Amino acid sequence: MACGTLLGAAALAADDLPDAAASDPRTLGWMQGFPPPPERIIGQPDTDYFGFPKLRWTVCHFRELLPTRRVSRGLGAPIPLVTDLDPGIDAVTFTPLGGGEPMTWEAALEVNYTDGLVILHRGRLVYEHYAGCLDETGVHGAMSVTKSLTGLLAEILVAEGALDEDARVGELLPELAESGFGDATVRQVMEMTTGLAFSEDYADPEAEIWAYNAAASPLPKPADYQGPRTYYEFLATVRPEGAHGEAFGYRTINTDALGWIIARTTGQSVSDLLSERIWQRLGAEQSAYFTVDSIGTPFAGGGLSAGLRDLARVGQLVLDEGEFQGQRLFPAEAVQRIRRGGDPAAFARAGYANLPGGSYRGMWWLLHNAHGAFAARGVHGQTIYIDPTAEMVIVRFASHPVAANAANDSTSLPAYQAVAEYLMGRD
Amino acid sequence: MACGTLLGAAALAADDLPDAAASDPRTLGWMQGFPPPPERIIGQPDTDYFGFPKLRWTVCHFRELLPTRRVSRGLGAPIPLVTDLDPGIDAVTFTPLGGGEPMTWEAALEVNYTDGLVILHRGRLVYEHYAGCLDETGVHGAMSVTKSLTGLLAEILVAEGALDEDARVGELLPELAESGFGDATVRQVMEMTTGLAFSEDYADPEAEIWAYNAAASPLPKPADYQGPRTYYEFLATVRPEGAHGEAFGYRTINTDALGWIIARTTGQSVSDLLSERIWQRLGAEQSAYFTVDSIGTPFAGGGLSAGLRDLARVGQLVLDEGEFQGQRLFPAEAVQRIRRGGDPAAFARAGYANLPGGSYRGMWWLLHNAHGAFAARGVHGQTIYIDPTAEMVIVRFASHPVAANAANDSTSLPAYQAVAEYLMGRD
Repeated sequence: MACGTLLGAAALAADDLPDAAASDPRTLGWMQGFPPPPERIIGQPDTDYFGFPKLRWTVCHFRELLPTRRVSRGLGAPIPLVTDLDPGIDAVTFTPLGGGEPMTWEAALEVNYTDGLVILHRGRLVYEHYAGCLDETGVHGAMSVTKSLTGLLAEILVAEGALDEDARVGELLPELAESGFGDATVRQVMEMTTGLAFSEDYADPEAEIWAYNAAASPLPKPADYQGPRTYYEFLATVRPEGAHGEAFGYRTINTDALGWIIARTTGQSVSDLLSERIWQRLGAEQSAYFTVDSIGTPFAGGGLSAGLRDLARVGQLVLDEGEFQGQRLFPAEAVQRIRRGGDPAAFARAGYANLPGGSYRGMWWLLHNAHGAFAARGVHGQTIYIDPTAEMVIVRFASHPVAANAANDSTSLPAYQAVAEYLMGRD
Repeated sequence: MACGTLLGAAALAADDLPDAAASDPRTLGWMQGFPPPPERIIGQPDTDYFGFPKLRWTVCHFRELLPTRRVSRGLGAPIPLVTDLDPGIDAVTFTPLGGGEPMTWEAALEVNYTDGLVILHRGRLVYEHYAGCLDETGVHGAMSVTKSLTGLLAEILVAEGALDEDARVGELLPELAESGFGDATVRQVMEMTTGLAFSEDYADPEAEIWAYNAAASPLPKPADYQGPRTYYEFLATVRPEGAHGEAFGYRTINTDALGWIIARTTGQSVSDLLSERIWQRLGAEQSAYFTVDSIGTPFAGGGLSAGLRDLARVGQLVLDEGEFQGQRLFPAEAVQRIRRGGDPAAFARAGYANLPGGSYRGMWWLLHNAHGAFAARGVHGQTIYIDPTAEMVIVRFASHPVAANAANDSTSLPAYQAVAEYLMGRD
């Protein structure tokens, strides 16, 4: 797997790239025909399948390119969402971050290369939109939104007393005792305040991200390959850098380590635990899946593909602090812990201009705004955005040409706030 | 994909191999632990994942090793099978083919390394059994049972007038005009009476099966690889050998060509068509999936993994000639065509000792016995066995150490007949 591209660092400017309509994967005709025309094939040995605009097809088709592991929905009937669409939402206007002309909600969908978007208000489906490679029967890569689900599982285990957040990683995973993770606490891993030597600078051929990508790939390694062959083996090679607990550093390897901690603690992989604790109990419509490494380890830091409405169900469950249809699926404390947030000072040092005053806790992003909003976020525009004050959950799947969410925040975060206010004003 | 092993030729004797209990993948502990012990890992770069006893794990886990394409069940509620279990079935006895001591149905499950077996009688679930890697929530490789589903789709298209069985392959697929397929008719492909140079003799390094396997693999090719890279490209290289229409020759490439014909005819891949025409309309419990080649082409000749009860639903639909819950999903003629059978003389020349008087039509095996039974069959013991006289459908998933079904026919075919008679006598 070209995991590097999944984590991707890229310039923020997309001015010279085709817009959403021009880069629509249906218009471009990727993988249409038997066989598709050679210049419209995305497959082996093409390693650029996550480059724009191919990624606009790939985000719905990871399993056709890579081995995967299912997150089973179980065998029961899906539990339908109550639908109460509000056609007024498209006309909601907002001012992009940094100023500029007001923009409508509807226009922002195109600007942000949105593939799918749903809004739940008070648990009812008030908005639903599909484009690009996605429809209601498909799944889409959630990218680093995956981290927040891994983090939620960990917070559930902490709230249930099964996992000690003050434990040292090296105590739980002796294999990591001598690594940079060894003397970090579980909480530091969950807040990504570990001090680790891990550069995601793709311009640097010595950056650790290259070794990580090579280790994570489920495809056969080159004959002369000598490096780590799995997530587990890679994590053991991570060296310390700086002190733990001082600064927020967004490093995917923390989530991979957390996935390992969860598996060692529960005896279940993240994929199986997510199925058992969440997917099978929410009336999910579709099974989800994880990409895996060469020995089937689910990519806890970014490998999930799921249905749009199913992620909305998960978002609603989080908003409802673990209660679903009168049943408690996990302790409310798990969400309450996330909402208390991480260390704002540690977060501020990382300099996220679009998230001033924010923090990170349990692998969720806390906005600490007036509405108490918090979010799961993944590259190229994926999000679960939860606004407790407005009782609103937004899930967006997207295939923005720029990986970093800073490129779409300006036309998404204020749009989410505007639609929250619209929904509250409607009541 | 080590497709060769999926088609596998092997000795029939399994006397020196561990029995079902000793080779149970749970007992052997494959892929248990985080990470599993090194000697219990099945993954890259291990290419022996379909060797016994590893195959007993692998048959339930192809997607964790290979790229795959979903056969969606859709988003509706599963339609439960009516359950009416008959505990008397385990004690039904039969005499194995070729003589020997009478054996009970229950004992035969172990002898045949059965992973899952269901019996429907008059549409009701009268028997259900899981073992090895399978449970009711899992899927299992159907191997060449896949061929019969591809064949069913083709027969549906013929019955609907969308596909002309007398057309030459080269007319429908100009890419194959110059190949051995070019002047064969669709019907000859569907009956596997094409004259093609295609040896599956693994002992012969020049056998075409090796080039086929290399072409079919979805994994990156070696840097110096010059051969065909997809099913499509391989099929175009197939040379003629002998005359079409004279002898039955069981060659998987016929089904791959048929899958291509179906895709070109309908504009849908076999996987999507199977979803639209069958899987979404039967109340299937689980989505199924196909393995794919390097450009996502589903392996029409053997790549399907599915849930046991879902294959039983398909078997019942075939028994009922396309009618499901009062609705007609396809013309009855599609099944009637299959049941009329192929050319017995052409079949006899192939010398299947366990299927005397049989024939092959629409990629189904006709027994032409007193009950009019017919079957889908896949290596290592997979089957959908349909007995119209007894109004009985049996689906078996298995992981017998010997690929060729001749190794398990002696303790399965007479068992099916005995349980059919038992069920008829019960009425």
